[in-house]
Amino acid sequence: MKARPLSRSLDLKKYIRDIPDFPKKGIVFKDITPLLGNGPAFALSIDLLAKVGAKHKVDKVIAIESRGFIFGSAVAQRLGVGVVPVRKKGKLPYKTLSATYTLEYGEDTLEMHVDGIRPGERVLVVDDVLATGGTADAVLRLVAQAGGLPLAAAFAIELKFLKGRERLKNFEVASLLLYR
Amino acid sequence: MKARPLSRSLDLKKYIRDIPDFPKKGIVFKDITPLLGNGPAFALSIDLLAKVGAKHKVDKVIAIESRGFIFGSAVAQRLGVGVVPVRKKGKLPYKTLSATYTLEYGEDTLEMHVDGIRPGERVLVVDDVLATGGTADAVLRLVAQAGGLPLAAAFAIELKFLKGRERLKNFEVASLLLYR
Repeated sequence: MKARPLSRSLDLKKYIRDIPDFPKKGIVFKDITPLLGNGPAFALSIDLLAKVGAKHKVDKVIAIESRGFIFGSAVAQRLGVGVVPVRKKGKLPYKTLSATYTLEYGEDTLEMHVDGIRPGERVLVVDDVLATGGTADAVLRLVAQAGGLPLAAAFAIELKFLKGRERLKNFEVASLLLYR
Repeated sequence: MKARPLSRSLDLKKYIRDIPDFPKKGIVFKDITPLLGNGPAFALSIDLLAKVGAKHKVDKVIAIESRGFIFGSAVAQRLGVGVVPVRKKGKLPYKTLSATYTLEYGEDTLEMHVDGIRPGERVLVVDDVLATGGTADAVLRLVAQAGGLPLAAAFAIELKFLKGRERLKNFEVASLLLYR
């Protein structure tokens, strides 16, 4: 699906702050905290992301640790559905399912409680940034592993040049703000 | 102020799961994920926590990493105000204020962006658990350091036997669920 930002007609980009050389030299980090801190901008962002879930009539929202918690939880609240945290290995207290994904060097593991998603539940995955799509792909696999229906993934920011969308081509992918 | 749970007349406790020996032997961890995952229970929890902010007419909600993000963000969205993340040292990309607090062994540092809270802003602090109150106390000090007005702190769970409330006696302290 072609990448089109949800907020095309609105100027949410002015609430994103560029931070040069974070977390390491040569990377320009997109800081979302000015957007979070502005009541109307935050409310609008959550409304737009929640529409993706409403369209698919989702039963649950998955929020990915840690900035994804901020967006995913508010989207779930807006939709009136439950929110399921996906966390780094070892952080969740109960029995978990896990999925591994590849990083630039090495790999990482994400976990979800075994009863987080029940068979047949319709699921929206929310995170702050879509980069290479490795994390979201792992989480969509976790949902399928639990017997749920992974229908869509929604992000505050999409770094289009990293082509994460191509990796998630079996799902609807929506993002508030696109950077080419 | 005397501790009274916000949800006295409701049975949210049935959505809290006891996990023995987590994160270490002898500790019974209160797992909030069943509450998060249930749409009506999650919505009610956020409504009750948001009332604390509405009463104080807050301008901002502070959400403490990482489970505090889940409650704080949804509370801010419910109130239509911005949410400001407080994170572990080194995680925030922009210039920060910091506060140190004592742990059982050693100490830890929390950070907030210097422009997270502006002078005169009315602030509600949200976290998942009130234990000894060390974290919340540090965050309330951060708010004051930024020139904001720290008015109240709201928690999903209060472990009353750890007496965190006594440490926060200059603020309104509210919790959904009390464990004595």
